[in-house]
Amino acid sequence: MSKTVKLEQKVHAKGHEIALKLRERFAAKGIYVVNLIGSPGAGKTALLEAAAKHLGARGGVIEGDLATDNDKRRVEKAGMRAYQINTVGACHLDAAMVRDALNEFSLDGIEFLFIENVGNLVCPASFDIGENIKVAVVSTTEGEDKPAKYPKAMKVASAMVVTKIDLLPYITCNVGKMEADVRNIVPGMPVFRVSSTKDEGVKEFIAWLEEQRGSTVAASV
Amino acid sequence: MSKTVKLEQKVHAKGHEIALKLRERFAAKGIYVVNLIGSPGAGKTALLEAAAKHLGARGGVIEGDLATDNDKRRVEKAGMRAYQINTVGACHLDAAMVRDALNEFSLDGIEFLFIENVGNLVCPASFDIGENIKVAVVSTTEGEDKPAKYPKAMKVASAMVVTKIDLLPYITCNVGKMEADVRNIVPGMPVFRVSSTKDEGVKEFIAWLEEQRGSTVAASV
Repeated sequence: MSKTVKLEQKVHAKGHEIALKLRERFAAKGIYVVNLIGSPGAGKTALLEAAAKHLGARGGVIEGDLATDNDKRRVEKAGMRAYQINTVGACHLDAAMVRDALNEFSLDGIEFLFIENVGNLVCPASFDIGENIKVAVVSTTEGEDKPAKYPKAMKVASAMVVTKIDLLPYITCNVGKMEADVRNIVPGMPVFRVSSTKDEGVKEFIAWLEEQRGSTVAASV
Repeated sequence: MSKTVKLEQKVHAKGHEIALKLRERFAAKGIYVVNLIGSPGAGKTALLEAAAKHLGARGGVIEGDLATDNDKRRVEKAGMRAYQINTVGACHLDAAMVRDALNEFSLDGIEFLFIENVGNLVCPASFDIGENIKVAVVSTTEGEDKPAKYPKAMKVASAMVVTKIDLLPYITCNVGKMEADVRNIVPGMPVFRVSSTKDEGVKEFIAWLEEQRGSTVAASV
């Protein structure tokens, strides 16, 4: 097993190197990169559809899925350019996949690049794919205990978006507990309560991203 | 990379050996084992809570989670004995974890052993943990495209349970499309439409499991 671990570390180190280069490339273009991680059906694509209304052509998306190009088509229809990666078997995106995608996807005019990871609240948390920040997306319908049950995803995230708040009248979910649990793991974690379909809370999330981009771009000057 | 692949194959082969022994051990006791796979918050634990009402002490549960013993406590409260595995980092259960759990969890009196895998619709699909069948659990709130987007989990499953059908009036989800998509991957796949909280469709799912157990026990005589 130690041999496996060593080889895995080597693979991780290689990925880290590619991620660093990607991050430099994005920074040089003033592009702020957000790696969205969350369960299948957490509402990551719907959040991007809603974000498209606020960002328009300033936003771009790389979609990661095992199969189908459903999400790419949804995001394009909403008004942002998008590229689809199909991982087939892989449970997460890695930096090399993102690098290869950029051979076919132009970053021109993009200020915010969203990378929607494979639907999986576990594995994507362990991989640096050149992003500025990871954002954890958790839906109310998954249940209030998800932040406590998936602590690694919370630990690596810079913010949590709680989606589908419009369904709260019909389900049992204490969003206050989700917030308390995530802040128990990451003190002061920003939390955004969002309904993507009703465009609630999306503006606040985008405003926060604009702030983050602003200070990152300023810092890199 | 080929060295990593070879080592992975070795690890898989070892796991397969343990799984075979587990399956023999379960068969000798007449225990039918169901490996539940699904996203975080798909409603796997709620399905088990509902199953407890029908099976009582005939059912037992091994819970797999990265963290917390929430699910064990929920299932016990509902009336089935349960054991919690915390995988910490691991994105799926493996056969050795199940074997080790059985050192501390008695199978006496149990006819159906449910193993609730880590919330993840990707990785658990690749691991044999000694079960008779895998059952894919997908909620209506995750969206109708999940069977098409996670084909591997469907391919290895012997049935699909669509949970949270009581929320259909409030969301956009075509369950007929989910059924068509999964049967496009696995022709004739049994699909159960369930509301665990309203105890709808659970009886039919349990009856199907009883049939499966009946023919398996008969076959092993």
